[in-house]
Amino acid sequence: MKILLVGANGTLGRAIHTLLAPHHDIVTVGRHSGTHQADLARPETLAALCAAVGPVDAIACAAGNVHFGPLAQMTAAQFQLGLQDKLLGQVQLALLGQRWLRDGGSVTLISGIVAHEPVRGGANASAVNTAIEGFVAAAAIEMPRGQRINAISPTVLTESLQGYGPLFPGFESVPAARAALAYQRSIEGAQTGRVYRVLP
Amino acid sequence: MKILLVGANGTLGRAIHTLLAPHHDIVTVGRHSGTHQADLARPETLAALCAAVGPVDAIACAAGNVHFGPLAQMTAAQFQLGLQDKLLGQVQLALLGQRWLRDGGSVTLISGIVAHEPVRGGANASAVNTAIEGFVAAAAIEMPRGQRINAISPTVLTESLQGYGPLFPGFESVPAARAALAYQRSIEGAQTGRVYRVLP
Repeated sequence: MKILLVGANGTLGRAIHTLLAPHHDIVTVGRHSGTHQADLARPETLAALCAAVGPVDAIACAAGNVHFGPLAQMTAAQFQLGLQDKLLGQVQLALLGQRWLRDGGSVTLISGIVAHEPVRGGANASAVNTAIEGFVAAAAIEMPRGQRINAISPTVLTESLQGYGPLFPGFESVPAARAALAYQRSIEGAQTGRVYRVLP
Repeated sequence: MKILLVGANGTLGRAIHTLLAPHHDIVTVGRHSGTHQADLARPETLAALCAAVGPVDAIACAAGNVHFGPLAQMTAAQFQLGLQDKLLGQVQLALLGQRWLRDGGSVTLISGIVAHEPVRGGANASAVNTAIEGFVAAAAIEMPRGQRINAISPTVLTESLQGYGPLFPGFESVPAARAALAYQRSIEGAQTGRVYRVLP
């Protein structure tokens, strides 16, 4: 399969690449790295990306920024970060996917544990991640030509504990390689409208 | 209690007003009606509203626009409608609520059945409604001074069947008066981080 992998140079993206590259043609995308550059927060760069790459069998996203910070100081402007980046950027990948995916192709988006396990400072992340899961369930019933759409929701990654660990007190982590397997299930499997949760 | 009711002139808002007005001081808010005017899609009007009304015991919202339309033609710009209006507008009410609610006060937001029962054309609505539910669960663990936050998720209202019925084939409706009871539970009750589903 020809797979468009957005966020290919991140912790999770590299694990997905390692797992899938031996069997598939992976087109790597990053903001500042990869074969193609694009930015989730700028929908026009995603449209240009799809036009440049042409038809693919799968679009997989392992990227997306949200705002983390105390609710007491949170502003509407800060809340926009996750809405415009991780949420609308990934929605845009799915909207474009309808046109650029081959028959039966798939879109795989990234959610995260805080969709259902809130943490302090995570109000934007919880809203964005639940929105992605709601979008996937709804989009699945309308995707054309046998196309599928799923989300992957891992808990905190072992490789990210150094940076994100303090946000997730007492959470058990999973290695990125396990989250990558969930992408393989979504891409090579037959299901749609699913959220694959990757938990310890 | 002094209750700020946003969307007071809508189908649901009027039912909430009818139920609560005999026992509470209701401050009505609408885009073009009510004692005060404000627009969910314009965060600055919400800040001005709270400053004008001053401390309240409850903020209840029964308003919010989303985009309905086929996924095949949906654009990122259309998807923004629900993000900027029903989602970010209500989030802004909660962020402001932290400052303007009296100790133990409550915020009650509106979600909807498509959060968990997708319908054709409802991808934006599903994403927005799930986001509101995710936000409520996360914000509840950070609201200060005993403040509470909940969401109400009714199925299609009987009074709205004429306009919205075709979007919900085979769905049983509930009268707005039943959804209003859920607002009373949230406002006069003691729970937080809850989604009150109003189903037949």
